[in-house]
Amino acid sequence: MEAKQTSLDQIVALCKRRGFVYQSAEIYGGLNGVYDIGPLGVLLKEQIRNAWKRSLATLDLDIVMFEGALLGPEALWNASGHTTNFHDPLVDCLNCKHRFRADDIDLAAACPRCGIQQWTEVREFHLMFKTSVGAAISSQHIAYLRPETAQSIFANFKNIMTSSRIRIPFGIAQIGKAFRNEITPKQFLFRMREFEQMEIEWFCHERDTVAFFDLWKGARLAFYHHLGISPARLRLRAHESQELAHYSQATTDVEYHFPFGWKELEGIACRGDFDLRQHSQHSGKDLRIFDEITKESFYPHVVECSVGIDRLLLTLLFEAYEEESVGDETRVVLKLHPSIAPVSAAFLSLNKEHVAATDTLYRTARAQGISVQVDHSGSIGKRYRRQDEIGTPVCITYDFDSVHDHCVTIRFRDSMQQERIPFNAIIPRIITLCGNSSAKNN
Amino acid sequence: MEAKQTSLDQIVALCKRRGFVYQSAEIYGGLNGVYDIGPLGVLLKEQIRNAWKRSLATLDLDIVMFEGALLGPEALWNASGHTTNFHDPLVDCLNCKHRFRADDIDLAAACPRCGIQQWTEVREFHLMFKTSVGAAISSQHIAYLRPETAQSIFANFKNIMTSSRIRIPFGIAQIGKAFRNEITPKQFLFRMREFEQMEIEWFCHERDTVAFFDLWKGARLAFYHHLGISPARLRLRAHESQELAHYSQATTDVEYHFPFGWKELEGIACRGDFDLRQHSQHSGKDLRIFDEITKESFYPHVVECSVGIDRLLLTLLFEAYEEESVGDETRVVLKLHPSIAPVSAAFLSLNKEHVAATDTLYRTARAQGISVQVDHSGSIGKRYRRQDEIGTPVCITYDFDSVHDHCVTIRFRDSMQQERIPFNAIIPRIITLCGNSSAKNN
Repeated sequence: MEAKQTSLDQIVALCKRRGFVYQSAEIYGGLNGVYDIGPLGVLLKEQIRNAWKRSLATLDLDIVMFEGALLGPEALWNASGHTTNFHDPLVDCLNCKHRFRADDIDLAAACPRCGIQQWTEVREFHLMFKTSVGAAISSQHIAYLRPETAQSIFANFKNIMTSSRIRIPFGIAQIGKAFRNEITPKQFLFRMREFEQMEIEWFCHERDTVAFFDLWKGARLAFYHHLGISPARLRLRAHESQELAHYSQATTDVEYHFPFGWKELEGIACRGDFDLRQHSQHSGKDLRIFDEITKESFYPHVVECSVGIDRLLLTLLFEAYEEESVGDETRVVLKLHPSIAPVSAAFLSLNKEHVAATDTLYRTARAQGISVQVDHSGSIGKRYRRQDEIGTPVCITYDFDSVHDHCVTIRFRDSMQQERIPFNAIIPRIITLCGNSSAKNN
Repeated sequence: MEAKQTSLDQIVALCKRRGFVYQSAEIYGGLNGVYDIGPLGVLLKEQIRNAWKRSLATLDLDIVMFEGALLGPEALWNASGHTTNFHDPLVDCLNCKHRFRADDIDLAAACPRCGIQQWTEVREFHLMFKTSVGAAISSQHIAYLRPETAQSIFANFKNIMTSSRIRIPFGIAQIGKAFRNEITPKQFLFRMREFEQMEIEWFCHERDTVAFFDLWKGARLAFYHHLGISPARLRLRAHESQELAHYSQATTDVEYHFPFGWKELEGIACRGDFDLRQHSQHSGKDLRIFDEITKESFYPHVVECSVGIDRLLLTLLFEAYEEESVGDETRVVLKLHPSIAPVSAAFLSLNKEHVAATDTLYRTARAQGISVQVDHSGSIGKRYRRQDEIGTPVCITYDFDSVHDHCVTIRFRDSMQQERIPFNAIIPRIITLCGNSSAKNN
């Protein structure tokens, strides 16, 4: 299947117009590669986080949650290899002083910005954000904002295992922010300097690594199918040996067919025992576990599954965005899976007399923890369009007849079909359609 | 009522032993004032976040959610006043070189560390973490990790209002991290360098500020009552005029009676129009809104409610922690409100033959999204104690009779009473007891 023809500009415009995502500190000219999440974006991200957590719960595996700090001391990043290995090649144009990622540029050609070919040597640019912690001169520490969530899990492996009384095979899952000072952040939410990851580190015996690697590849691909992403725009791609990161024995990416090509959505990596071994050596703390059968201590091996929530949000918007002709108009509609739609239902009043009764229905649904909106202004058609554009699966309209028949009109986003249902069927109907999204906590 | 006699050391030990909170990067000697959240801590924090969101939903006010970036450009912090005003007084001992917060120390007395009285002048120490963003020399920016969540809301006020089609009075709520390079982080989770806030900025007409200030004081105090905190250990305390921060017209704290005294749990502040005015002036963007009735543009006034989740977690642990004599033993029990307990129920098997059947009951509950544990090892008494210590409201034991009568023994944490109930009553019983906690997503 072809990549969707939706342009990035269309998505960026929708995000700002409807409050999914704004350029961070926009009124001050913005901070490149950094974004703020608006009201609908928060709801959608929360749906994504919950869908991910549910996808882990249904696997019937032992998985515990963890939230590591974002600041980490230098020693931690020495052990992980990041202070040494985490950089990108960088080159300057001597004429216009613009700086590029060397692998983005043909150095045998002219600068794409000024047209002169006059390059510096390629140098390595470090991608971690550095700061210092502590007020006392004697105890001041260099710290880095974590460039990935994984290391805090490895450094806490023994603490978590001991305090949770859990045995391998088991997983430690984490949702949280990470930071990379990208030379060239690009494609909106695709490559950001501040982003949010959802990650599982799965600890097992070395002999079981291949079986669990296969299990996780299948499970993670299934997750994207469940979110409603077309299987034809998803694929698993194994890394060639020269592509592998310094810690990895094998990596397979879940890729999505973006308008700008097949790109990584999630990385599934066999990290072996690289990390626990490194942290043991650097910290002097034994992170091995004891095998009751063989009576030997050993390092568990690790399979990692890691996806950026923001990149997944972008993927879901690309996947859901449609422009359709309706009569002589064009409607923009986000065909999000109902279970992850940021708003499950919108309540509309036909005229001023119906505002109070419509508000009552809206408040009843809101009190049940369902994500709902109410809209009293503009023509009904205009209000339908507003809800289509943010992916609301159903609109509920209170009209003249409602006063007498205690029924409302329910209108479906994708089919645009309408149906008459009684007041007391509204909430069950929303819950049936939107499933887990209706059990949300906010 | 007296402060609880529980010591901070007891809480710190419990947190590490059972996996609520660990010192961050502990295997590398730790990063002072920074903590990692273990499996039970993640569950408890998520319960706190959800309880907070529900408390907002039940107020029947218009509130939208927002998640701002953690990195902010210098211009933002110039506007907010943080680059100028956000510092603490600092003093060094010339003899031992130790550094103190000047307001923690009696400068007319000797150094509490070395016993010599030889102080430097008091200087101002800046509390924001600084870093730089961007690879290109020409576009490199000084950025700071945000010292509070509020400013990203103010800087996005117009974006949020426009894209959400919302009108004052309304609130923008945010949950997220903030960072302060405290001179002396202390009392565990009480004063951290990296922490998480839950915050509402409430925008209204100036004339309505007093009424909403009162509304929020009542609502926020009620939130803590609902969490099961003793009203006698909570109070509202209005700041004296000389205590007020540079942006505040009036502030009232919700205080908790910690073992180390009455301390702020949540701050409720009338910020006036200080922030929107500052950001308008510094950015050159008009952040006023237009009043349709008076036909004039004006800055809304702001009432802010802000609490640290980690400090609240510490409060809840202090409040819940009890040591009780049971026979000739002492049991540690966390009497957390069942709706926020990290684990709602534990399933125990009486002996090896019952493991499979117990696991089935456990899995059924887990598949419903209920936070549960299963424990097969040690005496039943020992397993009860483990669950008491982490605040699990009920234990469900499968025993010899269960095979025949399809019933289990349910044992209650606080009363230690036991009752026999049929299999199919287990989940409804947990849901009735733990309320919303059972509708959790993980």
